[in-house]
Amino acid sequence: MQENVLFDRITLVTPGADGQVTVRQEAWIAVKDGRIACVAPDRTSAEGALEGTDYVLYPGRDRLLLPTFANTHNHMAMSLLRNAADDLALHNWLFDVIFPREEKLDYGLVATGSRLALAEMIRSGTGASADMYFYHEAAIEAALEAGFRLNFSVDAKRPDPSGAAVPDERILSEQIRRWRSEPLLRVSLLVHSVYLYPQAVYPQLAAMAAGQGCTVQIHVAETAREVRECLQQYGRRPAAQLARFGFFQTPTLAAHCVHLDDEERAILARPSVYVAHCPASNLKLGSGMADIVALQEAGATVVLGTDGPASNNNLDMYHDMRLASLLGKGLHRAAALLPAATMLKMATQDGCAALGYADSGLIAAGWQADLQVVRTDSPGFNPPANPVNALLYSAAAADVESLMVAGQWLMYKRALQTLDEEKTRFEAEQAAARLAP
Amino acid sequence: MQENVLFDRITLVTPGADGQVTVRQEAWIAVKDGRIACVAPDRTSAEGALEGTDYVLYPGRDRLLLPTFANTHNHMAMSLLRNAADDLALHNWLFDVIFPREEKLDYGLVATGSRLALAEMIRSGTGASADMYFYHEAAIEAALEAGFRLNFSVDAKRPDPSGAAVPDERILSEQIRRWRSEPLLRVSLLVHSVYLYPQAVYPQLAAMAAGQGCTVQIHVAETAREVRECLQQYGRRPAAQLARFGFFQTPTLAAHCVHLDDEERAILARPSVYVAHCPASNLKLGSGMADIVALQEAGATVVLGTDGPASNNNLDMYHDMRLASLLGKGLHRAAALLPAATMLKMATQDGCAALGYADSGLIAAGWQADLQVVRTDSPGFNPPANPVNALLYSAAAADVESLMVAGQWLMYKRALQTLDEEKTRFEAEQAAARLAP
Repeated sequence: MQENVLFDRITLVTPGADGQVTVRQEAWIAVKDGRIACVAPDRTSAEGALEGTDYVLYPGRDRLLLPTFANTHNHMAMSLLRNAADDLALHNWLFDVIFPREEKLDYGLVATGSRLALAEMIRSGTGASADMYFYHEAAIEAALEAGFRLNFSVDAKRPDPSGAAVPDERILSEQIRRWRSEPLLRVSLLVHSVYLYPQAVYPQLAAMAAGQGCTVQIHVAETAREVRECLQQYGRRPAAQLARFGFFQTPTLAAHCVHLDDEERAILARPSVYVAHCPASNLKLGSGMADIVALQEAGATVVLGTDGPASNNNLDMYHDMRLASLLGKGLHRAAALLPAATMLKMATQDGCAALGYADSGLIAAGWQADLQVVRTDSPGFNPPANPVNALLYSAAAADVESLMVAGQWLMYKRALQTLDEEKTRFEAEQAAARLAP
Repeated sequence: MQENVLFDRITLVTPGADGQVTVRQEAWIAVKDGRIACVAPDRTSAEGALEGTDYVLYPGRDRLLLPTFANTHNHMAMSLLRNAADDLALHNWLFDVIFPREEKLDYGLVATGSRLALAEMIRSGTGASADMYFYHEAAIEAALEAGFRLNFSVDAKRPDPSGAAVPDERILSEQIRRWRSEPLLRVSLLVHSVYLYPQAVYPQLAAMAAGQGCTVQIHVAETAREVRECLQQYGRRPAAQLARFGFFQTPTLAAHCVHLDDEERAILARPSVYVAHCPASNLKLGSGMADIVALQEAGATVVLGTDGPASNNNLDMYHDMRLASLLGKGLHRAAALLPAATMLKMATQDGCAALGYADSGLIAAGWQADLQVVRTDSPGFNPPANPVNALLYSAAAADVESLMVAGQWLMYKRALQTLDEEKTRFEAEQAAARLAP
C-alpha cells in the first residue's frame, strides 16, 4: 500500500544533483503520492508539503535515510541454485551443476526463484535490479507483485525452420510496447556475450537495439579464456569486437569487464555505457579482479552488481559495495581510492541511472520515494562518527529496517509487506528439490 | 550463568580431529559443566550424559551449531576510533588521526572500547580473540566481565633513568603468574613490529619470549614500505631479520605477512608459528594482498583476524573469512582454492590453537562448550543446500542467534547476557568524544 509518510528528525544521507554526498542531521522528509514532497529542517515546512493529507509518522532517532540501492547485474532465479555447488572452476560449475539444472526450469520455477531473490534484495536495501535469465515474464510477475523496479532483458531470438535461433525484432518491440506504461519496469535486449551465438547474429542484435533505442544487457570480458578465444576467432578482444559488431550505441549494461586493454576502456567510456562491476562473483569464480579505477580514469561510468546468487552467494549490495572499494584500494595499494561517498553514489544514483530510472537514486523534492531506513544501534555504527563511512565499512544488510519503492513499503520494521516470505521460502525449497539431478 | 544445555535435533557443523569438516543433521548435543558432554543421534543417549542434572532444552530446528570463531589479530579498543577517518593512506591515518587520539587513552577508555569490541564479536559469532593494545589490564577486565577468551599481549618494557624503554622480563613473568589460573586468558609478549624499537631491544625480547616459553604477538611485513626500510636498515627482509633476532622459537601470532619471499615463507612454516591473515585491513589501508595459498603451500598455518575496528571497520569474522577465500581464488584465478571447509576450520579449530586454546574449536565430547547457534531462515540460507558453503558464502553476523563460551551464554536469542550493551554504547559515545582532538 502506498501511503504518505513523514520522517521525523532522521539523518539524511544522499548524493546530490552535484554528485556530492551530503549528510543532514535531524531532517524532516515528507513523502506524498510516491515521491519526495520535501526535505525540511522543521516539521511545519514538511507538513505543509503534505497539504493536509493523512500520513504516517516515522521516528528517525538512531536511523539513517538513504536511497535504495540499484543492483545492475543479476540472474535472480539462480537463487534456487545457491550453495548447491561452490569452489568449482567456472567450466565445471557451469557444465556439471548449473546447465543440467537449468534445463528443467519452467515459468513457475523462475517466478519462485525470482521471489526469493527479491525478498533478499528488499531485506538488504535494494529497490531496483537488472535481470538476465530465462522466462523473463515470470521475473516480471514476481517484481510487480513485490512492487520492485526491474530492468529485465528479452531474448529476442526465435527458432527458424532449421532449428537455429534467429533474431526477431518483433519479440523485442512487442515487449517494449506491452510494458511501456508500467513505471516499475524497463526493457533491455539480452545479448549474453560475445562467445555464445553464431557470428551472423551479432550485427542483427546490435541493429535491433539501435532500431528500438533499447538498452543492452551483456557480459563482457569476464574471463581470460573469453578474451583468448575471442582473439582466436575474431582477431579482436571482446569489447573491441562487440563495438565492431555495432554495440555500445544504445544504453548498455556491460557486466564484469575484468580483462580489458586501453582501447576497450575507451570504448566503454562512451555515453550511456555502464560497466556493471561484480567483484564478489569475479573473485569467487576465479575470473580475476576488474580494475575499476583504470576504468574511471578512462572516463567510464562504473556501477555495481551482485551477479546471480549462485556465484556470490548473496544479493547483498552492502557486501559488494564494500568489496569493490577494498579491492580497488588493495589492487592499487592506495587507501584513498574509491572513498565512501564515491561508493555510495555508485550504488544508488549511478546505478539507478544505469537501469534507466532517471528520477530515482537521490533524496530531494520531486524525486521518486525509493528509500531505505538503516538503524544505527548495532555495534558497527558505534561510536557515532561519519555515517557515510559507516555505511560503507561497517553497515550490514541486517541494519536495514524498512524500505519503500515509489512510496510503497516493501519492508516495514523488518517485515516484508508485499511478498509472503514464508511461502516463498517453502516454494523455493520445493523448487530446488525439483531442479536437483 | 553457566548452565547445562541440551541442543535438540540441531544441524551440527564442525571440524573433526582428522581436520575434516563434517555435517550431522538432527544431532542431540549435551553441554555439561562448561564442556561438550556428548554428541548423540537420539535424546536418550544425550540425556544420559547429563546424568540427571537440570538442563535447558534448545530447539534446533532451522539452526546450525558450530564452534565459535577465534579472531587472531585485533586491537579491541580501537573501536572508539571506528569510522572517525577512513580512505586515508596508512601514514596519514596513523599520524593525523590515530596517534593524536591514542595519546589521550587511559585505563577507563580502553576498558570501554574493549567492551564495545567484545559486544560486536559476541554478536558475530566470535568467542576468543587476540588483543594488542595499551592498558592490557583494562582489556582483561572487560573480557572477564564478558566471559570471553582473550589472548592479551604485554608490553614488557620499562623506562630506564634516561627515559629509554628497556625490556624487563619481570613484567612479563608477573603477568604470566598472575593469570595462570584463569582459564579464559592466555598471555603473549607484545612485540609491535621490526620497525618500532631500537635494534638492541629485539634480541632481548626474543630471549625473554624463549625464557618464558611465551607466545609473541607481532606485526610482520604489513606494507611494502616496512620491507624497504628493513632492507635499508638491516640488509634483510622483516621475517628474516626477526628470525635473526631470535624470534619464531616460541608460539607466534605473526599478523599480516603481506610482503614475503620464499625464505620468509619457510621461516613462517615453523611449528607453532601462525600467520594471522587480515584481508580487510590489508586492502583498506592499501597495504596489499597476502598470498595465503603460497604460505599454505610452503607449510605455514594460516589463521584469520579482523585487525582493529578502525581499519576494517568491523570485527566480523564472517566477513573476513569470506573475503579471505574470495581474495585467494581471485588472486590465483582458481575457484577451487580455499574451499568452504578449509575456511571454516581456519576460523575455528586452527584459530583456537593459534590463541592457545587447545581444547576449543571443535564440537566433540570433552571439548570446551564454545558454541554459536546460527539461524538458517534468512534468504541467504535458502533453499537449504550445503550448510558449510552457506556459512562461508551466504551467512552474515546477524544470523548468529546465541553464543556460549565454556558453557556460559554470552548471547541468548540475540540478547547479550554478560555485557550491558546499552551502557556500553553510551559510554563508548562519551569516550569517543573525549578522544576527538
